Amino acid sequence: MSLQAQKAERFRALHRGRRILLLPNAWDVASARAFEDAGFPAVATSSAGLMASLGYRDGEEIPRGELVAAVGRIAERLSVPLSADVVAGFGRTPQQVAATARMVLRAGAVGLNLEDLDPTNGGLFPEDAQVRKILAIRRVGESMGIPIVINARTDALRHGTGDDAERMREATRRSVAYRDAGADCVYPMGLTAASSIAAFVAALRFPVNVMVRKGLPSVARLERLGVRRLSFGPSASYATMGLLGRIGREVLGRGTYRSLVEGAIGYEELQRLGIPRAAPSSRS
Amino acid sequence: MSLQAQKAERFRALHRGRRILLLPNAWDVASARAFEDAGFPAVATSSAGLMASLGYRDGEEIPRGELVAAVGRIAERLSVPLSADVVAGFGRTPQQVAATARMVLRAGAVGLNLEDLDPTNGGLFPEDAQVRKILAIRRVGESMGIPIVINARTDALRHGTGDDAERMREATRRSVAYRDAGADCVYPMGLTAASSIAAFVAALRFPVNVMVRKGLPSVARLERLGVRRLSFGPSASYATMGLLGRIGREVLGRGTYRSLVEGAIGYEELQRLGIPRAAPSSRS
Repeated sequence: MSLQAQKAERFRALHRGRRILLLPNAWDVASARAFEDAGFPAVATSSAGLMASLGYRDGEEIPRGELVAAVGRIAERLSVPLSADVVAGFGRTPQQVAATARMVLRAGAVGLNLEDLDPTNGGLFPEDAQVRKILAIRRVGESMGIPIVINARTDALRHGTGDDAERMREATRRSVAYRDAGADCVYPMGLTAASSIAAFVAALRFPVNVMVRKGLPSVARLERLGVRRLSFGPSASYATMGLLGRIGREVLGRGTYRSLVEGAIGYEELQRLGIPRAAPSSRS
Repeated sequence: MSLQAQKAERFRALHRGRRILLLPNAWDVASARAFEDAGFPAVATSSAGLMASLGYRDGEEIPRGELVAAVGRIAERLSVPLSADVVAGFGRTPQQVAATARMVLRAGAVGLNLEDLDPTNGGLFPEDAQVRKILAIRRVGESMGIPIVINARTDALRHGTGDDAERMREATRRSVAYRDAGADCVYPMGLTAASSIAAFVAALRFPVNVMVRKGLPSVARLERLGVRRLSFGPSASYATMGLLGRIGREVLGRGTYRSLVEGAIGYEELQRLGIPRAAPSSRS
């Protein structure tokens, strides 16, 4: 089995281990490596964070090649498994989405997030079309000998039709369909209340991903609720940009540098975050 | 005069205004745009920060084209002037350094930092060789009709020979030579004590750049000392990576998310940091 295939298996196993998978979302090499050094067993990309870093709005405005190149830069320097957020796959057909999956696998990713929100109109792709895309991604992985980990996201809770209960039913129905099509984890975007999480996990009996946001139950509570994977989403990008705002207010307003120097790392440590963990440092 | 030429003149004027120029160093589009939104009148790139973001150690390990592409991404989305750190110019000859200057000007930068530390051996380039590079950059700007703002950095304080006094003399002598060759600002890396700053400013009678670090006098004090430009160097990258470390320790250790959600910005705000200030937001 190739190293990449082994990484994919290791990543899959993290969804079925004793503990919940804590999965931070990075936007560039340094942030990904910082999370790796902090001890996270895998890293994912944040679409919103990565795209803002490169000068695009979230969605599929970014040229696919630029997204893939960014995934490649991170994957090349990371030792732990990397999962790539490919939004809705950059295409309407299973073939187009499969081509995107092939590109991110070639770039070194071992997992991906695929959402069912149509970035061109803000509505949901039909469930059967989404199922065909998941099947196509699975076949790409098989043809490349990489058991890619598919996290199937549904945006039905936020972009479905009807009242809360109807949207919850649609998110559940879609997640069951994505699970049965071969996804490894399902991700109902917008699920935050403990009672909804419990109901969803009970309905799926399958790895469920939830995203960090204000008011989300603690990790220990999520574990007890049966959640298997907790991703950061863009929250580390939000926190970082909040810090830059505080730095700006302090330097411009008070003329001091406390927020720049307190709790900061140093030069040598930053250097190490640009390169793989094992590689030696050169310039002093 | 072209818009880029006007930006260069505006950036130059900021070195000779009533107040000290507060110049934050960014590593990607989002960080640059965050500093712009915070109210900074110009932004620079941090070589160490930008390179770690793209997966390289500080120095000239990064392919020049990748550095230039990153400068272009930022310059395209930024309304305020952008200054690019080009390390030692990616070459030993004035012609090679001039080619680098041409590339970053074409990418949209209006200023650059050039250091005299030889990245291949950690020693200093001869003073006269550095002077010829500065003259060559000035000619490139003239030929392109862009009055590029040159910040000439000397590493003599840290990498020169002899004791503290001898290295201070060498840094002063080199800075005078760079000033007389046509630099717009001089940057003695490692100058932090108020007494040394005062002596240096008195010897130069010219815009001097100092870098934020722990223990640096406050902005008000620096202004009184006659410093004309205060750059962040990689400190915002250091602070950000420190925050990611704290996030990792909290999520992995305590299973809570306070450092991820407190003081953070939101989705719409992050979206706006990926695009120019004026452009409208699309995806909700």
